[in-house]
Amino acid sequence: MQSAVDGAQRVGIELGKRRYDIVIGRGLLDDPLAFDNLPRSKSAAIITNTTVSPLYAQRLMHVLARHHQESLLVELPDGESHKDWASLNLIFDSLLAAGADRRTVVYALGGGVVGDIAGLAAACYMRGVPYVQVPTTLLAQVDSSVGGKTAINHSLGKNMIGAFYQPARVVADLDTLDSLPQREIGAGLAEVIKYGPIADNDFLDWVEANIAALLARDKTALGHAVRRACEIKAWVVGQDERESGLRAILNFGHTFGHAIEAGLGYGRWLHGEAVGCGMVMAADLSVRLGLIDGNYAARLRRIISASGLPTRAPGLGNERYLELMRVDKKAEGGEIRFVLIESPGRAVVRAVPDALIREVIAAHSG
Amino acid sequence: MQSAVDGAQRVGIELGKRRYDIVIGRGLLDDPLAFDNLPRSKSAAIITNTTVSPLYAQRLMHVLARHHQESLLVELPDGESHKDWASLNLIFDSLLAAGADRRTVVYALGGGVVGDIAGLAAACYMRGVPYVQVPTTLLAQVDSSVGGKTAINHSLGKNMIGAFYQPARVVADLDTLDSLPQREIGAGLAEVIKYGPIADNDFLDWVEANIAALLARDKTALGHAVRRACEIKAWVVGQDERESGLRAILNFGHTFGHAIEAGLGYGRWLHGEAVGCGMVMAADLSVRLGLIDGNYAARLRRIISASGLPTRAPGLGNERYLELMRVDKKAEGGEIRFVLIESPGRAVVRAVPDALIREVIAAHSG
Repeated sequence: MQSAVDGAQRVGIELGKRRYDIVIGRGLLDDPLAFDNLPRSKSAAIITNTTVSPLYAQRLMHVLARHHQESLLVELPDGESHKDWASLNLIFDSLLAAGADRRTVVYALGGGVVGDIAGLAAACYMRGVPYVQVPTTLLAQVDSSVGGKTAINHSLGKNMIGAFYQPARVVADLDTLDSLPQREIGAGLAEVIKYGPIADNDFLDWVEANIAALLARDKTALGHAVRRACEIKAWVVGQDERESGLRAILNFGHTFGHAIEAGLGYGRWLHGEAVGCGMVMAADLSVRLGLIDGNYAARLRRIISASGLPTRAPGLGNERYLELMRVDKKAEGGEIRFVLIESPGRAVVRAVPDALIREVIAAHSG
Repeated sequence: MQSAVDGAQRVGIELGKRRYDIVIGRGLLDDPLAFDNLPRSKSAAIITNTTVSPLYAQRLMHVLARHHQESLLVELPDGESHKDWASLNLIFDSLLAAGADRRTVVYALGGGVVGDIAGLAAACYMRGVPYVQVPTTLLAQVDSSVGGKTAINHSLGKNMIGAFYQPARVVADLDTLDSLPQREIGAGLAEVIKYGPIADNDFLDWVEANIAALLARDKTALGHAVRRACEIKAWVVGQDERESGLRAILNFGHTFGHAIEAGLGYGRWLHGEAVGCGMVMAADLSVRLGLIDGNYAARLRRIISASGLPTRAPGLGNERYLELMRVDKKAEGGEIRFVLIESPGRAVVRAVPDALIREVIAAHSG
């Protein structure tokens, strides 16, 4: 008899004592093997949201029954606009009220917002408890659940309050992608596309050739995309866990993207939508700096557009964009720094003069 | 000419890439040498409270002028009752409004409450910025500023939300102890006394012989006490940074102590007062378990009493004490675990039956 986990793939994040596996495959939510060798304890806390909970929480509780005698379910309100202190504190209140201790294992069941908040809660509850990411969106499976970045938003900036805190495992069940609205498939593809120009141009070729299969949620195509994205992210994070250098390249498109999200109010555009449009702008900035030619930027724009993503930014005004980007975490001493494409498949982080940034905003927004 | 830092002593906390020095001496707030080789950046943020700020903030800003072009001053309300999310968020609001970036250095100027909140703010602001502890109370100089434990309180438990996050330096200026109310000298001595029974009985002999000089703020005596306390703490933390074992012994007296603080409402008793009384109770528990004899517990009680500390706990009721202690971070699976004195100068962590705990509470409270 075939186990459901047969065909599942594992990608390791090599961080010494903090190393862990990403398990990618179908049917994993029901497969004990996907959760093998994880910490066992009296209690577990499953952090999810009101949308995901009715779909998957019972199945996760069932598969975890042999690890924990009791499972606490914490349902957060859904959406980026709730990635805030109120949601974080709801988790703390629930954990303390239920008597969770330092051995309690936190499971983050949902998309990037749930994963980021639950990860930060795990990092800070009693100064740190183990946690497992169970991402149920494409964006979370290819990016946010991997690498230990956790955060909540502040009204003055996205992801401003957070911690680097690695999970004990990431379990990416491809079948959960079936429940996603189409808009979120496109948003996830933005983060898939990202890995090509910054690290692996062959992967960009593959994505371009398979964009229709990916949008149609072909599981073989999605499995390959998730695995390759995680491999690249693992390679980057393994070298620079706390983003003192190389890791910043994973933020390609994010400086413009965060400004779009914050400027419109969190949740208006999905994070992946903002990043997609941000990549179009950052690629144009790379062209204007003479790093890549216009054809490459145009091709990238076509792939982003073919994923159903917006490629024109909202008109917030030049100065508002600059103001929003000056609080970006990559900014230093008031200078805005961007991830740029140095050559196809290779990124660089560089401060850019305000005048050039204004040109790009003017050309791509409004 | 003698530098003011002459005679200053350094104790190293050996944590590999996170190693740092504790500098102990007089006049350090005005001495650039105490702050040598620390990160320089455009901006600094000095986190303090409304009591400490008028005494020392200007001097700290002055000595830091060569490290940072601008200093942001954030004044928190004073007291343990403000060791909460509101104070933490006040820091985040101030840092973001001032455009602080990932190179901004945070200085915690004050006692244990300021140090714990500012340390957590540094741990989480943009996922971590460097910070320096400048403790101005005896309790902070001998304990809370050293070792990287940061936290805020939750209404359901003390220090429940926090992080392990090491400072880049601890600068303990003994002259700042002159501005302390006498009650806080006693509270600080509780944490000094603690190190004897758990790790160095000769040091307990020394404290006993010098209690009058310490209470009179004799700088030679205080200097020795701070240095020896930091040496012991450095030895413990160097072996177990994240409290997976040995480090828990530093919580001698804290399980009962935290229950007293939480039960009365934070701020009614000073932390050190609660710990002093908690040590009397934990020593009695050790006697009842047959670990040490009654004479040693009685002697410890006399030293605590001679420091001006209360040795009788408030009457909260047996069951309320048990309830409060069950959320202690050392508790596991509902069992309350205590730091006990195994023999003079040696501690052990052990779960204790509720019946015995009730006996100790009944004998020492009300």
